[in-house]
Amino acid sequence: MRSIYLDNNATTRVDPEVVEEMLPFFTDQFGNPSSTHAFGSSASGAVRKARRQLQALIGAEFDYEMAFTSGGTESDNAAILSALEVMPERTEIVTSTVEHPAVLTLCADLEKTRGIRVHRVPVDRLGRLDLDAYKAALSPRVAIVSIMWANNETGTIFPAIELANSAKEVGALFHTDAVQAVGKIPIDLKSTAIDMLSLSGHKLHGPKGIGALYIRRGVPFRSLIKGGHQERGRRAGTENTPGIVGLGKAAELALKFMDDENTRIKSLRDRLEKGVLKRVPYAVVTGDPLERLPNTAYISFHQVEADGMLFLLSRYGIACSSGSACSSRSLEPSHALKAMNYPDSAAHGTIRFSFSRHNSEEDVDRVLEVIPGIVEKLRDMPRYGSPAEERRSGLR
Amino acid sequence: MRSIYLDNNATTRVDPEVVEEMLPFFTDQFGNPSSTHAFGSSASGAVRKARRQLQALIGAEFDYEMAFTSGGTESDNAAILSALEVMPERTEIVTSTVEHPAVLTLCADLEKTRGIRVHRVPVDRLGRLDLDAYKAALSPRVAIVSIMWANNETGTIFPAIELANSAKEVGALFHTDAVQAVGKIPIDLKSTAIDMLSLSGHKLHGPKGIGALYIRRGVPFRSLIKGGHQERGRRAGTENTPGIVGLGKAAELALKFMDDENTRIKSLRDRLEKGVLKRVPYAVVTGDPLERLPNTAYISFHQVEADGMLFLLSRYGIACSSGSACSSRSLEPSHALKAMNYPDSAAHGTIRFSFSRHNSEEDVDRVLEVIPGIVEKLRDMPRYGSPAEERRSGLR
Repeated sequence: MRSIYLDNNATTRVDPEVVEEMLPFFTDQFGNPSSTHAFGSSASGAVRKARRQLQALIGAEFDYEMAFTSGGTESDNAAILSALEVMPERTEIVTSTVEHPAVLTLCADLEKTRGIRVHRVPVDRLGRLDLDAYKAALSPRVAIVSIMWANNETGTIFPAIELANSAKEVGALFHTDAVQAVGKIPIDLKSTAIDMLSLSGHKLHGPKGIGALYIRRGVPFRSLIKGGHQERGRRAGTENTPGIVGLGKAAELALKFMDDENTRIKSLRDRLEKGVLKRVPYAVVTGDPLERLPNTAYISFHQVEADGMLFLLSRYGIACSSGSACSSRSLEPSHALKAMNYPDSAAHGTIRFSFSRHNSEEDVDRVLEVIPGIVEKLRDMPRYGSPAEERRSGLR
Repeated sequence: MRSIYLDNNATTRVDPEVVEEMLPFFTDQFGNPSSTHAFGSSASGAVRKARRQLQALIGAEFDYEMAFTSGGTESDNAAILSALEVMPERTEIVTSTVEHPAVLTLCADLEKTRGIRVHRVPVDRLGRLDLDAYKAALSPRVAIVSIMWANNETGTIFPAIELANSAKEVGALFHTDAVQAVGKIPIDLKSTAIDMLSLSGHKLHGPKGIGALYIRRGVPFRSLIKGGHQERGRRAGTENTPGIVGLGKAAELALKFMDDENTRIKSLRDRLEKGVLKRVPYAVVTGDPLERLPNTAYISFHQVEADGMLFLLSRYGIACSSGSACSSRSLEPSHALKAMNYPDSAAHGTIRFSFSRHNSEEDVDRVLEVIPGIVEKLRDMPRYGSPAEERRSGLR
């Protein structure tokens, strides 16, 4: 049975070209980039090249604005904690209710342990940020705004560029978790007021365990991980050369494929959504119909438990998810859908199909072939949720 | 010209068997270990296996005592910062003057920004810890002792097990940066009082960008990087599956080769030291002659600049270093030698040769062949250091 992988917002297959590029740095050019001998300098040259590849993908003005980290979560933590350190007189954070756990868990901790005030800007039923609430939360007491560029569950795109402009007006730093946006939509940081941006290798066909934090030139920064002088003192620890090289190559490929592939990916996604809505009654596509990642379909199936659906899909070799992988072991329904005010009964029955350039029309057609039967089967089983909840959901 | 790599304390060549083991996890079993589908579960199974391989190498009682991190520096930071958080009533740290920058830079920062009192226990001329000073520094005000198991520059081994016992007497947590010790000397944590231990993949023929923090069962811990629930809430962020698998395999190989290879490595190291002392006048082997890593030779050449020596060695394809790679871009001489009270003129002329199981007798003989000429050439050049310093060094 052919496997169909539709969970690319959780992680992606590393592109074979990326692996090819990484390989020499394990066993041949394996030196420590900080070493001054030939083994070291060939590694440090490779790191420089990767920095420029990444710079090109996100349109940074200078290559040294990129500090390599171990991934998106570390980048998010580093950005927020740095802002609080460099502006100790400011004790508030503005974020949204639908951020990744890397931001929300940290903010909750800061609230509890350091008395930081956290404003969580709500979203509407389509997952769009409440811009009035956002502006109301801004004040000269805010050290940093951390709002994602695109949501990992619904794919809804936030107006990061405008949000950054507003943050500047009150002198706050603006950080965006762009882990889901980078490589999927064009980004040109130099023309924005964004101060810091997190990205992750494994979301764009690069390796796991590597990411970066963009830190605009001139933005004050204090490193989260302290030690050696690597990354201009912004991130200590021996550079992960193969990972960095892989991320650089993945960035190069993402830029190369950006236009054509994302058009193709969007058509696959749209084909899936239209097909499901046509074949399955009581299904709803969630998220902003206009501003949404081209690769993400987050579909709520009324009177269905996501777990059962994932299980039956997996029996056909189809891998997708009910939301963030980082929360998958918890029994809580999607926190994005809860924030969008979906009742639990609907949130529990929502499936995320996230595409990549490795998917084909055949994948979509196979999903469309099996999904009506799966939903029907599950709806015939004893149901979750009370009739009252179902009415509240507006789905019946 | 054949390259001779003798800088294995900076980083090691990834073992081809390790790369082999990692490869399927880039393009085939690439799922997110936190995902519940088949792609996720094959990855999470691999992570479990690696955890047990690592457990075996360091003799941990339980496999879940290992939390994977991005490397030694992160592990060190996480251990120390956690201790201060879980024991807020204790505001002192005990460490040594010869720790890795991952510990020393963090401690200096904590001293400056949080008013933490840091005791830096000195070492003697052989790099041995001053045990009286250590005991004097311990008190119920100490939250954590962080003292390395083996020094990265001299290879001197500290009595970590006894140090941990003393720390327990005052109720302090005991952490050891064992980045240089793991894989080189036998470690059996379950029979010790060590609470936390840092290790790094790339120092034992595993990949860069992966490490672990051993956290003994029952030791209170608060994660440095906050977000998802990975690693039992002790380290957030998508698991670096290929890196973890690589570290696991590297641990398995290190354990397999431990006895035989380390005997062989020690004989290579001894052959080098004896050969140098015999052929080069005014050369001194630094560090503890008894308790020393089997792979490390740190040799001080009087009236020689290390930079010049490294340069000339590199022209013969020989890669070694003047000390920690993490400090190599600074012009400061070895901080370990400074702590050992060597004058700058001696510290400036010290070269670290660090071996691995990939080295051969041929490598040693080649070094011995070229080194007398190189030293002679450099000594004929204008000299560094004043005559007064030279006398103070006791080398003439």
